[in-house]
Amino acid sequence: MRISVLVLLMIFFLPVAVYGARAPVSEDTEACIECHSSVHPGIVADWKKRRMARITPSEALKKKEVSRRISVEKVPNELAGNVVGCAECHTLNPERHRDTFDHEGYKVHVVVTPKDCATCHPVEASQYSKNLMSHAYGNLNKNPVYHNLMETTNGVQIFEDIKTTYKKHDATTSADSCNYCHGTKVEVQGVEARDTDFGELEFPVLTGWPNQGVGRINPDGSMGSCSSCHTRHQFSIKMARKPYTCSECHKGPDVPAYKVYQVSKHGNIFSSLGKEWKFDAVPWIVGKDFSAPTCASCHVSLVVSGEGEVIAERTHRMNDRLSWRIFGLIYAHPHPKSPDTTIIKNKTGLPLPTELTGEPVAKYLIDAEEQERRQKTMQNICLSCHSHGWVEVQFARFENVINTTNEMTLTATKILLSAWEKGAARGLSQNDSIFNETIEKKWVEQWLFFANSTRYASAMAGADYGVFANGRWYMSKNIQEMTDWLEFKLKGKN
Amino acid sequence: MRISVLVLLMIFFLPVAVYGARAPVSEDTEACIECHSSVHPGIVADWKKRRMARITPSEALKKKEVSRRISVEKVPNELAGNVVGCAECHTLNPERHRDTFDHEGYKVHVVVTPKDCATCHPVEASQYSKNLMSHAYGNLNKNPVYHNLMETTNGVQIFEDIKTTYKKHDATTSADSCNYCHGTKVEVQGVEARDTDFGELEFPVLTGWPNQGVGRINPDGSMGSCSSCHTRHQFSIKMARKPYTCSECHKGPDVPAYKVYQVSKHGNIFSSLGKEWKFDAVPWIVGKDFSAPTCASCHVSLVVSGEGEVIAERTHRMNDRLSWRIFGLIYAHPHPKSPDTTIIKNKTGLPLPTELTGEPVAKYLIDAEEQERRQKTMQNICLSCHSHGWVEVQFARFENVINTTNEMTLTATKILLSAWEKGAARGLSQNDSIFNETIEKKWVEQWLFFANSTRYASAMAGADYGVFANGRWYMSKNIQEMTDWLEFKLKGKN
Amino acid sequence: MRISVLVLLMIFFLPVAVYGARAPVSEDTEACIECHSSVHPGIVADWKKRRMARITPSEALKKKEVSRRISVEKVPNELAGNVVGCAECHTLNPERHRDTFDHEGYKVHVVVTPKDCATCHPVEASQYSKNLMSHAYGNLNKNPVYHNLMETTNGVQIFEDIKTTYKKHDATTSADSCNYCHGTKVEVQGVEARDTDFGELEFPVLTGWPNQGVGRINPDGSMGSCSSCHTRHQFSIKMARKPYTCSECHKGPDVPAYKVYQVSKHGNIFSSLGKEWKFDAVPWIVGKDFSAPTCASCHVSLVVSGEGEVIAERTHRMNDRLSWRIFGLIYAHPHPKSPDTTIIKNKTGLPLPTELTGEPVAKYLIDAEEQERRQKTMQNICLSCHSHGWVEVQFARFENVINTTNEMTLTATKILLSAWEKGAARGLSQNDSIFNETIEKKWVEQWLFFANSTRYASAMAGADYGVFANGRWYMSKNIQEMTDWLEFKLKGKN
Repeated sequence: MRISVLVLLMIFFLPVAVYGARAPVSEDTEACIECHSSVHPGIVADWKKRRMARITPSEALKKKEVSRRISVEKVPNELAGNVVGCAECHTLNPERHRDTFDHEGYKVHVVVTPKDCATCHPVEASQYSKNLMSHAYGNLNKNPVYHNLMETTNGVQIFEDIKTTYKKHDATTSADSCNYCHGTKVEVQGVEARDTDFGELEFPVLTGWPNQGVGRINPDGSMGSCSSCHTRHQFSIKMARKPYTCSECHKGPDVPAYKVYQVSKHGNIFSSLGKEWKFDAVPWIVGKDFSAPTCASCHVSLVVSGEGEVIAERTHRMNDRLSWRIFGLIYAHPHPKSPDTTIIKNKTGLPLPTELTGEPVAKYLIDAEEQERRQKTMQNICLSCHSHGWVEVQFARFENVINTTNEMTLTATKILLSAWEKGAARGLSQNDSIFNETIEKKWVEQWLFFANSTRYASAMAGADYGVFANGRWYMSKNIQEMTDWLEFKLKGKN
Repeated sequence: MRISVLVLLMIFFLPVAVYGARAPVSEDTEACIECHSSVHPGIVADWKKRRMARITPSEALKKKEVSRRISVEKVPNELAGNVVGCAECHTLNPERHRDTFDHEGYKVHVVVTPKDCATCHPVEASQYSKNLMSHAYGNLNKNPVYHNLMETTNGVQIFEDIKTTYKKHDATTSADSCNYCHGTKVEVQGVEARDTDFGELEFPVLTGWPNQGVGRINPDGSMGSCSSCHTRHQFSIKMARKPYTCSECHKGPDVPAYKVYQVSKHGNIFSSLGKEWKFDAVPWIVGKDFSAPTCASCHVSLVVSGEGEVIAERTHRMNDRLSWRIFGLIYAHPHPKSPDTTIIKNKTGLPLPTELTGEPVAKYLIDAEEQERRQKTMQNICLSCHSHGWVEVQFARFENVINTTNEMTLTATKILLSAWEKGAARGLSQNDSIFNETIEKKWVEQWLFFANSTRYASAMAGADYGVFANGRWYMSKNIQEMTDWLEFKLKGKN
Repeated sequence: MRISVLVLLMIFFLPVAVYGARAPVSEDTEACIECHSSVHPGIVADWKKRRMARITPSEALKKKEVSRRISVEKVPNELAGNVVGCAECHTLNPERHRDTFDHEGYKVHVVVTPKDCATCHPVEASQYSKNLMSHAYGNLNKNPVYHNLMETTNGVQIFEDIKTTYKKHDATTSADSCNYCHGTKVEVQGVEARDTDFGELEFPVLTGWPNQGVGRINPDGSMGSCSSCHTRHQFSIKMARKPYTCSECHKGPDVPAYKVYQVSKHGNIFSSLGKEWKFDAVPWIVGKDFSAPTCASCHVSLVVSGEGEVIAERTHRMNDRLSWRIFGLIYAHPHPKSPDTTIIKNKTGLPLPTELTGEPVAKYLIDAEEQERRQKTMQNICLSCHSHGWVEVQFARFENVINTTNEMTLTATKILLSAWEKGAARGLSQNDSIFNETIEKKWVEQWLFFANSTRYASAMAGADYGVFANGRWYMSKNIQEMTDWLEFKLKGKN
């Protein structure tokens, strides 16, 4: 009897036992908390709830490797013995941080960066630097073609004499639109004084801040933001593994990954049964901790079987499980070799991974062998629940979709080329934007919305996004509308 | 040992202890339940589950003020000692209720109204009467401009001789479309007899019923419906605080608040971690009871810090936290002073808060000082988790978006004016509807869908709804399509 | 004290007690698990979690009838005493299964079918065979009109000389688009050898596999797939009753049932409070086990009152609760009598349940009396929580919407007929597809997207899907755009 009651008590009070309320907090962090628990009660309470506030790096290192959340072999002595609090992150590497400022006797910086996190998580930081996402700022803003897509999307238009012209769009607009996800460039502009409850204090003035974009350029020169997915100030792995996190940036018509997932069988299982799963288990055991993949299972997480066999190694590079790049670009194509895609040039000198008519620019893209290797890595996860036959057909269907969507994009491109040639619209040879006229915008939707959606629907089995929900129905209708537009425009022309 | 077991028992049985099964139920309510627990088992079971069935007003008044859900100082004696059951609400104020009917010896009314609820919740009822929502019926149906938008949206069209005409739309259609959310006018038409399990009984016949719209005109002359958000018959604060409640009316392309929230960082935190939060705590403690705002946190709820400091007072008026009105109208503008917007007239006599070219009609709108005051109230909530610098830039970006979206609406308006002037469409000077032709409908989408979506995306940081998901991409494309339409229409005209 | 602790212990350990870990597993299934728990750890773990792995058919039969999940009166002796494991389903009826193959000494088949499940669930299998869904493959693929809709949606288009042509679409594309939900035809193509961890083994090669579509044609000649909704390998009733399951196929613009549900009051209650409900209770008690309907409550489940009265009998036929067919076809119409709709012919010989101008083809459709009967069955569920007056008006509004949406479809049809007549497009009399030109595709959207959405919004009270979210706004705008298209096309023609 006594034992049973003890067991019961343990079930209830185990969490308290594991995360002792008495985990050592550094003096510096105590000093932060003293004021900020009343100034910013929300984030202090948030932090206190989770692991970072409850376990020291040296305790974390005592776990066996497969269960560790940190990847460093030895934590610097001055950090090892206290939990990871305000001061541990916001005063780290002050010399590297241009946003460092004097604050109540401390050298504090505002923007915590992948280089800071790398103190305990170097493997993840290094992998992430090879992820396309860490280069998302430059890949969009420094590629003249995509940058013009931004300009013609965000720029205010003026109408006069039945003609429209574009005003240049401003950095504030970019930060609020494309760069919200892609990341901004955060730079120190100066210093300003503010009246606070604690008297007048000085703070740095930052451009491009706030921002949590995946490719943020940080004041210490690093790229990316761990808190894009590991949301401040809980930094919860539970949250990063849920598809809602990915949906912050991967839900729109240009990249409907989350929407497709939602109507897929996997998404249904997650929605219907997911609340029984263990989202914070490390390693993550298929079948035991979760019954169907979330985004993280297939693209990021360390997944093991109930018998302890590693099914997939953890990766923050992600593209080592991806053989095709199916969105963002005009045609689907083998994944680029370098995460910096601004280096790519096609035959006509455009910074694109394919020609305008679809042929891949092989030199910058992974070869068939590497594609095969990455595909096997991904398929290994599928095989936890599906037979070889099932998985092979699934991937064969996906490659068929890559082909047919690329064909439909080519058809749209041919209509566009015809419009340019016949003078119905102005494009490359007229040195005009390729994104600013109706038929050009329809061409963009053909690949950016409809072909992307169809490919996602196939990859993740969310059927309607490949048919009536921005899928084949719209690809097919768009071709007809582009043709009609061309006919109407040319009417009475000659 | 004994004590521990007691603690455990308390954890399990506390709810039963707090809400004693023996809370006093009035004789009248017992009489209702006797039949209705078999006639309408669902709603009786619903009611029994929650607070209304478990605590008497006089017990509720014993709580300290900050924890109270009722705002009256003294409950009428005849109501104070019993829980709030069927009879307490459905037989209250019989003389005021035109829908009162004799039912098994009681004077019962069907439609419970804000005036009824005000018996215990007078502050909330009074605040709500100053909320634009309580005037949603008249503001739509009695404004000739918006009423014509309804007509041209809902009216059946006939095609003959390559021309279309509109049939008048009927009240049944309105009740099923716009007025579903805006509210209907509920009026007593007469009485009808029905055969029931308890013999023939008489019931009132109501027009505009059923309806739970926010601006419903009730048979007692009051406006609104508390059960829009506090859903019958649980009336759960837990539910009203969840964003799903707001999404019933705020999810479409005209007002995509919920969709934007879903992909925002706040929405992600709610979806990922929200099931651990306390949604029925009063007051609502930031960080402790919830980790990220839902709609209610920013727009309605009493929010306090862990140290007991009031961060925001409860408001059912809502607009005392809102400086701008960003949806519904042609241009975003300072919030109107009066919740009754039918009183507004612009220079040209149109019942609109701005001129057709965007200049606000200052007389009817709050001034800059009041805007500043409201903005500070809202920002105070943000500051629980964000620094002053963060919050200020967030709001500066938002005002930038108000400007650029208004500019893009003006451009669309200029194309429309040009179409009217050149005879490509018929508008104000031709005494024709401004909503019934293709180019007019495209103009409506520019502000009602795309500008609104872009503003919401900025206000609540749900990036893609400001870019590819009904955002800037569509504003930009729509301008081109409107221009082309004008060109095609004019072709061969002269 | 002792008793209380015992109660507590029971609360905790009851599940283990009910589903004894020692439920008898057949030798054959043990043999499967021996290898597959390491080859396919996910699905084995899945299966182990749920009822099928924990209760034998003979135990299941001991429950009183209203609580049973199986409908057979006597289970074959050889199956009665063991839990339902791998071998029980995958080796059943080997002679009927063309996909049977020799596997490690067993006659195994890949595709488990409704005929297999009927061993224990014959009533459900029989009902389902009368459900339109079980005929979804043929009703789409063998109806020449709809098949052409598939062709023109999925077929790759080629652009040459300002003209477009269609390439035939392939079976791989169909399996990945329409037939993903409608079901494929699964046929055995041959056998292939594979290297496995257990040496070289032979497996059947199947066309149309994998697929879980509702109308799948199986290798044993049966139609449908129970695992469409009762997802492998948990087969959880809990999951089938959640709306996420239905949303796999009923979320797109052609059939936005789930989206409408989400913004309805019912959907809000489910989202806000549903996690407190008992989704695996049989029978399902309104008010006690759930507080608002999900899809299953109204369309499938056995629903009883707290007093044990049956409110609705379980049905896997579903259409015995449906008087109107409101989606998929050009006009809403009384439900077809036969689930095989390929037998229908209208006056002009088209395989459609109405004329092109909307008149129903009465011979193939249920009559008013049967409509009335089905409507009463459905309304009985509504009456659990709503008054007769409420429910009658709800259904009257719905019939009004059926009329007005059909009228708006007729208007669109008249524009299309005019376009065909005037030579602006090529249709029936030109022996051309009625789906391949812009105006034809706009006509399709009028009924397939906008009228459907408006009807669902009315049926399930999700207002905005009847107004601005693919509802009346788009019906109204589409009529104007079709008229303009016709005008532009005819310009300069004569």
